[in-house]
Amino acid sequence: MGISLTSWADTPTRRRIIDFVERVSGDGPGAVPAAERVAVFDNDGTLWTEKPMPTQLHYIVQQWAAAAAAEPALADRQPYAAAVNGDFAWLGSAVDKHYAGDDSDLKLMIGAILGSTAGMNVLDYEKSVAEFYRSAKHMTLGTPYRDAVFQPMVELLRYLEAHGFSCYIVSGGDRDFMRPITSEYYGIPPERVIGSAVGLSYDADSSEVRYASTFDFMDDGPVKPVRIWTRIGRRPILAAGNSNGDIEMLRYTQGSQESLALLIHHDDTSGRGDAPYDSGAELALAAAAEHDFTIVSVRDDWSSVFVPQGAADTA
Amino acid sequence: MGISLTSWADTPTRRRIIDFVERVSGDGPGAVPAAERVAVFDNDGTLWTEKPMPTQLHYIVQQWAAAAAAEPALADRQPYAAAVNGDFAWLGSAVDKHYAGDDSDLKLMIGAILGSTAGMNVLDYEKSVAEFYRSAKHMTLGTPYRDAVFQPMVELLRYLEAHGFSCYIVSGGDRDFMRPITSEYYGIPPERVIGSAVGLSYDADSSEVRYASTFDFMDDGPVKPVRIWTRIGRRPILAAGNSNGDIEMLRYTQGSQESLALLIHHDDTSGRGDAPYDSGAELALAAAAEHDFTIVSVRDDWSSVFVPQGAADTA
Repeated sequence: MGISLTSWADTPTRRRIIDFVERVSGDGPGAVPAAERVAVFDNDGTLWTEKPMPTQLHYIVQQWAAAAAAEPALADRQPYAAAVNGDFAWLGSAVDKHYAGDDSDLKLMIGAILGSTAGMNVLDYEKSVAEFYRSAKHMTLGTPYRDAVFQPMVELLRYLEAHGFSCYIVSGGDRDFMRPITSEYYGIPPERVIGSAVGLSYDADSSEVRYASTFDFMDDGPVKPVRIWTRIGRRPILAAGNSNGDIEMLRYTQGSQESLALLIHHDDTSGRGDAPYDSGAELALAAAAEHDFTIVSVRDDWSSVFVPQGAADTA
Repeated sequence: MGISLTSWADTPTRRRIIDFVERVSGDGPGAVPAAERVAVFDNDGTLWTEKPMPTQLHYIVQQWAAAAAAEPALADRQPYAAAVNGDFAWLGSAVDKHYAGDDSDLKLMIGAILGSTAGMNVLDYEKSVAEFYRSAKHMTLGTPYRDAVFQPMVELLRYLEAHGFSCYIVSGGDRDFMRPITSEYYGIPPERVIGSAVGLSYDADSSEVRYASTFDFMDDGPVKPVRIWTRIGRRPILAAGNSNGDIEMLRYTQGSQESLALLIHHDDTSGRGDAPYDSGAELALAAAAEHDFTIVSVRDDWSSVFVPQGAADTA
């Protein structure tokens, strides 16, 4: 096919992927019609790095800092104070407090997020996000976010497409925060991006779609299979994820007669990718053993991790 | 391109469609990149007949009659009694009463609709709907519903695709009631079918997606642009509808730099298609004059209306 998994080491994992793809796209036992070859991919930690924090939080903090610069009184209260002072510890503790039963700080954050887009034309948000991606640098890599994409996964997307698959992103991240860059970074167009969503309303005066001040749904855990059905209307035959929020999507996919469930495991100590972590993936790793998910070891199965700079231009 | 609008008469409407499509798909002024050539189509009354009643009501009444046959006590109460007795007047009056401020009968109907699928696997509903389409006959035409499709619109779908367009259905009808047949009838796959939706939930025990007992949203009027953004993430450049519920979708589409808004007008008295009607389209016809929608006159612009029987097999 002229498309190969060159950033994948020659391991049983790579062979299992190739065997599966060749079987379902062949004409022997296990063949699946092209229209049913649907593959779904989590985004943060699966298609690109999610460390030290999801990209979207970087954008949100920038927005809050800009709001406080325009209206200085905001800088005295949270979450704007944390944004102005670069106090990521406060942001992290807000989430920790939430899991400990205290939603007060998280509510401040969500209120500020919804407040920043309420009434905004979706096309203006799209422009704002695109501008962020043009200028922002990944906080530890120091490169544009485009270079935080996992090269083996981009190769897998192209390999699947070359075998008749349709690939979708199914992420807990905000759908409209991903759409402006998924075509360029991953070759996945906006209509194939599934994610969490803020409410929307139609403004008849301007004939525009605008964000409401309410949250619509969080596309994580058991919501992922629901959104897959809503958006695609088919059960996938391949799914890839990396965390506890992907378990249901992987299990749902395994309900197909032929299926492959991939769980990316960040276990590489060589410094090529993210430092090793299991946090947030403990249940998924346990489920992998029970349900025969195929573990993709960054250490053993990937011969390189990030897209070489500028290489994506010729992809 | 080898694909032509042969069921369209040579009128200014046909020429306006062709001029638009050639302009946006050409390389001169007004060219639109292929990825942005999105077209959206209402279903009932636009792609196929909606008379004497939307197809879905036929299915629902059959389901209620079957439920009453299995559990005879149901036949004594509405809406099952109306289904058993073929009392379509009662069903119509329930809707009339709703518009007059009395929701009591409509609530009985909605409760029975939601009750019939609550807890059901979406794949079982898909099978039930597919079986309906295999056996049901259109109530006045006496043919399979496949032959109630408007041939000029199928030609338009193919003509647009031949010019790089992606075509979607955006209907007030139930999304999952359309999906089982849109590939075969219209060449539109399930992931491009947007419609009204019953709530869904993921059942972790069986790893299946099932219907909830709640209604999620009605994809009509101002909800259509919202669902278009949710599902596609782009503003269409062509839209076609036939009723008041399509006004917002048509106006939203006209916000694109290049756009064409088509309003099908059922004005044919020759007996080739539906008997003429403006009911439910009064506001849309008024908006057409104000906003330069292109009226598609069934009488003047279509040289034939229905797909010749069996012809779709070779499409």
